Amino acid sequence: VSEFRKDPITGCWVIIAAARAQRPRQFGSSTHSSQREPCPFCAGNEALTPPEVWAARQNHSIENTPGWTVRVVPNKYPALVAELDWSKTNDGFYESLPGNGAHEVIIESSNHDVSLASVSENQFTNIVKAYQARIRALGQDRRWRYALLYKNQGDRAGATLEHIHTQLIALPAAPKAALEELYGAKAHYQTTGRCIYCEIIEREISQRERLVFDHENFVALCPFAPRFAYETWILPKAHIAVFADSSEEMIDDFARALRETITRLHRTLGDAPFNYFIHSMPMDAAVHRYHWQLKILPQLSRAAGFEWGTGAHINSIAPEAAAHLLRDALL
Amino acid sequence: VSEFRKDPITGCWVIIAAARAQRPRQFGSSTHSSQREPCPFCAGNEALTPPEVWAARQNHSIENTPGWTVRVVPNKYPALVAELDWSKTNDGFYESLPGNGAHEVIIESSNHDVSLASVSENQFTNIVKAYQARIRALGQDRRWRYALLYKNQGDRAGATLEHIHTQLIALPAAPKAALEELYGAKAHYQTTGRCIYCEIIEREISQRERLVFDHENFVALCPFAPRFAYETWILPKAHIAVFADSSEEMIDDFARALRETITRLHRTLGDAPFNYFIHSMPMDAAVHRYHWQLKILPQLSRAAGFEWGTGAHINSIAPEAAAHLLRDALL
Repeated sequence: VSEFRKDPITGCWVIIAAARAQRPRQFGSSTHSSQREPCPFCAGNEALTPPEVWAARQNHSIENTPGWTVRVVPNKYPALVAELDWSKTNDGFYESLPGNGAHEVIIESSNHDVSLASVSENQFTNIVKAYQARIRALGQDRRWRYALLYKNQGDRAGATLEHIHTQLIALPAAPKAALEELYGAKAHYQTTGRCIYCEIIEREISQRERLVFDHENFVALCPFAPRFAYETWILPKAHIAVFADSSEEMIDDFARALRETITRLHRTLGDAPFNYFIHSMPMDAAVHRYHWQLKILPQLSRAAGFEWGTGAHINSIAPEAAAHLLRDALL
Repeated sequence: VSEFRKDPITGCWVIIAAARAQRPRQFGSSTHSSQREPCPFCAGNEALTPPEVWAARQNHSIENTPGWTVRVVPNKYPALVAELDWSKTNDGFYESLPGNGAHEVIIESSNHDVSLASVSENQFTNIVKAYQARIRALGQDRRWRYALLYKNQGDRAGATLEHIHTQLIALPAAPKAALEELYGAKAHYQTTGRCIYCEIIEREISQRERLVFDHENFVALCPFAPRFAYETWILPKAHIAVFADSSEEMIDDFARALRETITRLHRTLGDAPFNYFIHSMPMDAAVHRYHWQLKILPQLSRAAGFEWGTGAHINSIAPEAAAHLLRDALL
C-alpha cells in the first residue's frame, strides 16, 4: 500500500503513504472531545484498535480488554507494513521499493485526560519498559535494520490524536539523520580515539552552562548547536550504543531523567508542543562507536522556507539561555 | 548579534539569532487587523521599516514614500547582518562564526489586502524583477557565496506578517540543501554526461503523469519523490544554472509560470499555507552542472518526530494524484 521512493538528485528517500490521508483527527475540531468519536486509545475501546502486540496488565486481565497500564498496538493507518513483496522497481532512472516495515503505537495511559507532564514516576517506568520491549522485539526481526521511537505531543507537533501515545517504526534501512550522526561519530573516533558523545558529556558537565541536570547515570543538556529553541538531549553517562540493551536499573533511571526533563520543559514552556525520539545504534552495525540518546525538540516556531531551502535552522534562543531557564525551573 | 554554530557530530550549521525573538506577529491575534499595530509593509508606513534598498516606483515618486509597486528593505529583525568581524571561535571542539550575511524583505504589494493568488500578471512580473535585481546585487558582493530567496505564505508556513512579502538571505557559504543537489547533479553528470534536471524535464514531459504544465520556456511538475503533499517544481526547459542571469523574456515567462502555479494550487487547496524558494548555482562555482529551479512546498501537515528523527518524509499524496488535480484545476 505504501512505497519508498528515492529522489534521483539527492538520493533521499520519501515514503508515499496514501492511506495515511484517511486518519481521523481529534485536534482542530470545535466540539468537546466527549461529543466526538470515541477515542480508540481509551480503556474500554480496545476493539477500536488492531489487536494488541504487548501490554502491561494488572490482575491477570485478558488481552484486548481493560486492565492495562500501557498498551501497544499496530498503527491502524500505518506508514509501513510488512509486505511479501520486496522487489525494487527501477526504470533506469526512478527507483522505488514496497513500503516494508512495521508501525506501532504505544498507548501511554488508559485515561484520556492524563498528560505526559502529569504521569506518575511508576507509570513513566512502565512506559519506558514498553519502549524497550517493543524496540527489542522489532530488533529481533531480521527484516528490519532500524527502529525509530518518536513522539508527537500536541497538534502543532504533528499529533492527530490527543490521548498520550508514542510511535515506533521499524525500517528496512538506517535513516539519513541516524547515519549522519554515525558517520560523524565514526570520523571523530578515527581522528581522536574517543566517542564524541562521551566528550560532549564531559565538556558540558565541566562547563555547566548548557547542562540541565547531572544525575548518577544520565545527563540532560542543551546542545551547542541546537536546531530548535529549548532543544534538550538526554544521554547515558556510560558509553552505551544500544538503548534496548539497557539494564533494568538504567531503564528506571532513564524514566526518571525523561520525566524530570518533561517536567522542567513544562514548567518553562507550559503546554508547548514537542517531539522526541531515540537514536540508537542500527541493528546490524558491527562496531559500537555510537552512544544512544533521546532528543526533545519543542516546536515553538515552524520550520519554514529558510529551513527547507537551506537544510539549516535559525534558532532564536541560545542554548545557554535555554539551559539556564530549565535548570532554574521549580520541580 | 547572531552567530553560526557548527554541530560537532554532524557538521551541520545553525544560526543562533536571539534578536529574532523580538519580532512582532500579526497572526495569532484575535483582534481585527485594522485595530492592531500599523503594518510596516503598507504604503504610507515606509518610516516603520529600515530605508529601502530597491523599489519599483511610479511617476518619479520619492524613495521611502508611497508610489511604489514593489519595495525591498533590510529585514528589521535580521537573522544575519554584515559584521566587521569574521573571526572564527574554536575551543578545539566547538566552532562558531559571527552571523555574517544580509537579510532583506521584498514587499510584494503596497496594499495589505492583496493575496498572492490575486496579484495581476503585470505586478507578478514586477515582483520577479525585484527578485532578480536583489539576488544579482547581493551576488556582486564578494562576501557572500549564496543567496536564498524564500517565501513563507500563511501562519502555518512560518510567516509572522500577513502583508505579502518574500525574504532574501545572503550567506557566506552555500547551504547543505543546495550542496546536496549540486553534488547529486555533478555525480549524475560524471556518470552519464547529462544534466539530471534536463533529464527529469524530458522524462516528465514525455510521461505526462507528473506534469502540471508545459509552457514554451518553463515546466511545472510534481517530482517523483516529493517530501510534501502537492510539492511542485518550476524549471526552465533550457539548461540554465543561474536564475539571476535570466533574460527579460525569461523573467516574464517565469512570472507567468509562477503565477499560474500559485493559481492552480489555490484552486486546488484554497488558502493552504506554503513555502517556496529558488535554488540557483552558488555564486563562486566554476562549473555549471546545475539547473536553477523554484520549489513550492504546501504545508498541509507538519514535519514531526518521524521527519526530524529520520531526515525522511512521509507524504500522504502520490505526486501523480497531486499533478492530476493541479492539471485539472480551472483557471
